[in-house]
Amino acid sequence: MSYAELLDTMGQVNDLLNAESILKWDARTMMPSGGTETRGKQIATLAVFARDLLVADQTRRLLDGAERETAGAGEDSVERTIVAQVREAVDYHLAIPADLQRRRAELGTIGQRIWAEARARSDFQLFLPVLEETVEINRAMAEAIGYSEHPYDALMHRFEPGETVSTLRPLYARLREVLVPLVSAIARVEPPRFDFLERHYPVEKQHAFALKLAESVGYDLGRGRLDETVHPFEVSFTRNDVRITTRFYPDYMPASLFGALHEAGHGLYEQGVDEAYTRTPLATDLVGLYAVGGVSFGAHESQSRLWENHVGRSRPFWQRHFPQAQATYPEQLGDVSAEEFYRAVNRCRPGLIRVEADELTYDLHIMLRTEIEAALIDGSLKPRDLPEAWNAAVKRDLGLDVPSDRLGCLQDVHWSSGQIGTFCNYTIGNVMAGQLFEAAQADGEVAAGLERADYEPLRRFMGEHVHRHGRRYGRDELLRRATGRALDPEPYLRHLSAKYRELYALGDAA
Amino acid sequence: MSYAELLDTMGQVNDLLNAESILKWDARTMMPSGGTETRGKQIATLAVFARDLLVADQTRRLLDGAERETAGAGEDSVERTIVAQVREAVDYHLAIPADLQRRRAELGTIGQRIWAEARARSDFQLFLPVLEETVEINRAMAEAIGYSEHPYDALMHRFEPGETVSTLRPLYARLREVLVPLVSAIARVEPPRFDFLERHYPVEKQHAFALKLAESVGYDLGRGRLDETVHPFEVSFTRNDVRITTRFYPDYMPASLFGALHEAGHGLYEQGVDEAYTRTPLATDLVGLYAVGGVSFGAHESQSRLWENHVGRSRPFWQRHFPQAQATYPEQLGDVSAEEFYRAVNRCRPGLIRVEADELTYDLHIMLRTEIEAALIDGSLKPRDLPEAWNAAVKRDLGLDVPSDRLGCLQDVHWSSGQIGTFCNYTIGNVMAGQLFEAAQADGEVAAGLERADYEPLRRFMGEHVHRHGRRYGRDELLRRATGRALDPEPYLRHLSAKYRELYALGDAA
Repeated sequence: MSYAELLDTMGQVNDLLNAESILKWDARTMMPSGGTETRGKQIATLAVFARDLLVADQTRRLLDGAERETAGAGEDSVERTIVAQVREAVDYHLAIPADLQRRRAELGTIGQRIWAEARARSDFQLFLPVLEETVEINRAMAEAIGYSEHPYDALMHRFEPGETVSTLRPLYARLREVLVPLVSAIARVEPPRFDFLERHYPVEKQHAFALKLAESVGYDLGRGRLDETVHPFEVSFTRNDVRITTRFYPDYMPASLFGALHEAGHGLYEQGVDEAYTRTPLATDLVGLYAVGGVSFGAHESQSRLWENHVGRSRPFWQRHFPQAQATYPEQLGDVSAEEFYRAVNRCRPGLIRVEADELTYDLHIMLRTEIEAALIDGSLKPRDLPEAWNAAVKRDLGLDVPSDRLGCLQDVHWSSGQIGTFCNYTIGNVMAGQLFEAAQADGEVAAGLERADYEPLRRFMGEHVHRHGRRYGRDELLRRATGRALDPEPYLRHLSAKYRELYALGDAA
Repeated sequence: MSYAELLDTMGQVNDLLNAESILKWDARTMMPSGGTETRGKQIATLAVFARDLLVADQTRRLLDGAERETAGAGEDSVERTIVAQVREAVDYHLAIPADLQRRRAELGTIGQRIWAEARARSDFQLFLPVLEETVEINRAMAEAIGYSEHPYDALMHRFEPGETVSTLRPLYARLREVLVPLVSAIARVEPPRFDFLERHYPVEKQHAFALKLAESVGYDLGRGRLDETVHPFEVSFTRNDVRITTRFYPDYMPASLFGALHEAGHGLYEQGVDEAYTRTPLATDLVGLYAVGGVSFGAHESQSRLWENHVGRSRPFWQRHFPQAQATYPEQLGDVSAEEFYRAVNRCRPGLIRVEADELTYDLHIMLRTEIEAALIDGSLKPRDLPEAWNAAVKRDLGLDVPSDRLGCLQDVHWSSGQIGTFCNYTIGNVMAGQLFEAAQADGEVAAGLERADYEPLRRFMGEHVHRHGRRYGRDELLRRATGRALDPEPYLRHLSAKYRELYALGDAA
């Protein structure tokens, strides 16, 4: 009885969070500019109502009752899992003082405006007070949430439960060990031809072609749609309405293409969550207060990177799809071969900007950010010393000098809105994608499918081992069930080494 | 203190209702078909939360306090008005038993499906149980809400506060006295040429032209947008985000044009509400639980009909804009004069379908529906006898035989979703539009502006006398302030008689 009522209440929490997501999607895709201020208030009200309903006295009474009711069920049962997740989320939110929440919400509004100006003017001193406030609020939140070893662990928990500074350290060391020399070797080699990617590509054609590829990997338009935004994203309002966006540059075609494939990968995850989990905590992030079916931000990123990179940037993919691209763009690609196209979309080059980074250098951008965040939170790095630390890390890992803070530590939006703890997800996602893709390819049907551009066996493998489970299992449990072991960087590193050594004719691994 | 907190709470009610409106707009314009079921749940949750917040114990404590705090303010002050409106809404919602609300909500889902099938098959017997349930629920609601004279008054209150069966009776009698003979006289005259309206008009051109006309009357695209839907509508999410839709028929151009002008008229009302009223009860219908700035459905309709008919179907309008139409559609309108176009878009012809009715016959459709609804509610008409009563009224007022219930009493969606009491708004809106337009034209600047297709003086007049007040004054008080008297059909009838007698060369009024 209590359990059933608790599920009803969690259904309402899910409804409110989905409504919030719809308002945010609309704000980024459809809303006239005049709506900004009142839309912000509407979103804030929905967030407050969702949180308040989750921790309400009545909800907690139902939770107590549900714990008693389900005590007899197996520890691993859906019922016990749901009840435990609600308990964890209630405790989490009650631990954070209202005052801290308020300060963080206020910072979000002001901080982004100041950051935008500071970045435009490359003026770190202008941004420094915002950064100091962000760090202070997040340190206080870490203390409130609690942790065993490192305060940064408490902040990562919301995005990547279970990940800690001490689990990341050996992972990052191993990644750097392979990536840094590989990137540096490639930087000394002549890059492939890529002029044809910068020809004029009409936006309407790009839209149709991006949509066609998204559909070809299994993204269901009966439960989705593709729109244009400055920054591509995916968002779901239950598995039955999962939307993606991409960006269109008339003179740089890969942006729309790989943006759409990346977001379609996220979309497949959400569209594939077990229908029975709809509106339950197994399709709601109650800690992050976000209506999402994926189990962690890293797990989500594994699906986007898998379809973007392991599939979409593979040679078989372009052997199959380049003729379609050529037919769509006869003038732009008439003098290009499939092999040239494949090499161009895999061009590797160390750069200063994270969001423009290629498959091979992306993790180097991520790792330095995670480490800087951890150091800001444990106090070993003072906010005022950020530019120096940033520039040193970029020099060390990417071999580049940072000419201005605009192209350095002011480039990302995250810190301006009070968010600390989320960067590691991108690298976790890459590592997981490598691990899952290797496991999937051991299935003969998947491998054979990929060779003939039939993505259904791979999508079915991911559906079976990842998507359908929603938030039923933790990330490492999910990985163990799918691949036989927890997070392991070796498959990913094998993939990168083999691919880029062949592409740049570097010979066998050093 | 209590008053300020009450305003905060009402701001949240407004946020929730606006969020509900956004979800509904999205469902009609953007949502993939798969989202229907879960979207319905999200909308239902928002509606429940808005209603529950309005009548919550804490809200009522604030209301009690606010009444004491504002007792010293003038009776007509904004503060007293707001407090009185909240009190009225709280009492209204508490009077309706939860069971009745639940039955009505359930009926909405099933009823529409059954109605759609019944209409397709023209099978009244299939729809009869839904109609009986609708009537029974609405009779019970009328008893719960309360009334002085007629139970139907209680149902109209939500849409047109203050309107009653006994105020409608003389109004309708007067309208019929003029309209019925006029329509019947016109039916005997040769209709104007209109073949060119049914040529092929590309949808993209229609979209651009409709948008241009909407902007020309003052609709602000910085706080709005135009989309396509099967049934045109306007919806606002505060005055800063007011959206309109229209429909596009490739072979019937007036639909998109007058649809856009009509909805732009609604849009001007919402965009023009005093900014200080944003998120307050003066821009929230707390009785209807709908985030709207207009004071009644009839008042809203007055603005849409004013711009659609008094402006958009006037001779000066097409003298000015026909050259633009001709330049947009040189092939379709090359052999047509401005005068022919003006006459074609004012073609009058009694028909069976309300939504296709012209300016002159529209009220005849409305009045018979209102009277049938009132009779169903007071029990003088049994649901099973509806077709007979309907067909008799159509014969009497429009001179037509109804060949099937599909083209008769099954044509409207309203009753299938449990809604009774809203039809009179359309006619009230027409009458108000006539009255307000006549008052506006007494202003020399307005009249001069219209002659040179400058709509700014008229928009300013409506902004000053109608839009900015939001829900500050009741409809008749608003009319008295704007025109010197309460609702009066004579200006509207003068407008119709003069226009149609001239168009159809009928000579002076009988």
